Amino acid sequence: MPPANRFMELALAEAEAAGKRGEVPIGAVVVLDGEVVASAGNRTRELHDVTAHAEIAAIRLAAERVGDERLSGADLYVTLEPCTMCAAAISFARIRRLYYGAEDPKGGGVDNGVRFYAQPTCHHAPEVYSGLSESRAADILKAFFRERREEP
Amino acid sequence: MPPANRFMELALAEAEAAGKRGEVPIGAVVVLDGEVVASAGNRTRELHDVTAHAEIAAIRLAAERVGDERLSGADLYVTLEPCTMCAAAISFARIRRLYYGAEDPKGGGVDNGVRFYAQPTCHHAPEVYSGLSESRAADILKAFFRERREEP
Repeated sequence: MPPANRFMELALAEAEAAGKRGEVPIGAVVVLDGEVVASAGNRTRELHDVTAHAEIAAIRLAAERVGDERLSGADLYVTLEPCTMCAAAISFARIRRLYYGAEDPKGGGVDNGVRFYAQPTCHHAPEVYSGLSESRAADILKAFFRERREEP
Repeated sequence: MPPANRFMELALAEAEAAGKRGEVPIGAVVVLDGEVVASAGNRTRELHDVTAHAEIAAIRLAAERVGDERLSGADLYVTLEPCTMCAAAISFARIRRLYYGAEDPKGGGVDNGVRFYAQPTCHHAPEVYSGLSESRAADILKAFFRERREEP
């Protein structure tokens, strides 16, 4: 399996694990020099923290491990298009490449919504690759919300 | 002194304290039912965390104290116009009113840049009040960057 797909598999596994914890199932992985330095699922409910989206959780963990808040040269894999908040956080962290699975027309901030990386107030834009495992990423989310609707 | 000015005074004090720690001097205060539930300065350098802007640091602290990630009914005071990341975080936290000091044409995301609260991908917008103690808020930032430039 090509490395990019392997890293997205890990992000998908983090998404599924997050769903089992009752969190919206989104997962993210930070890769530096071909090695996974951090992976995380959404933790907003667990931590009572609206900023604990998978991307930010993974970036915080990676920065802690690397000992530098700037992750220049690192790549981020995430199952869903980042929201506006995460798109900006990814920029601040100087992520080199962003790979995401499914698009998010309602909440995304990369190829939808504010399209942050195309704005003059964005001072670092990662290269963006989308559509990696997009149907699986979307299916995990759809199944989660379907189950929640069916709960009594 | 009217309460709004008193809370902004506290945010300015947090900004000054952050500057003394070598952080970009921005401060924020979360107020719920007329009481300060959290106040914080920028902590990005200290925590190696690009997301530890004053607003997010204060929101996280407030959510921890309140035991709920949604701070419905709470107001946030911050010395500088929030950036795109913080504008979205403030929306996610369901902040009722946002009071900020100086505008930030280069990095702001409320009345500059992406103007997040006016976008269809923004699902909760606080009421926004700007210009509170704006010259002092701006002066604290200008003095900080002037000193840094003058350092050998």
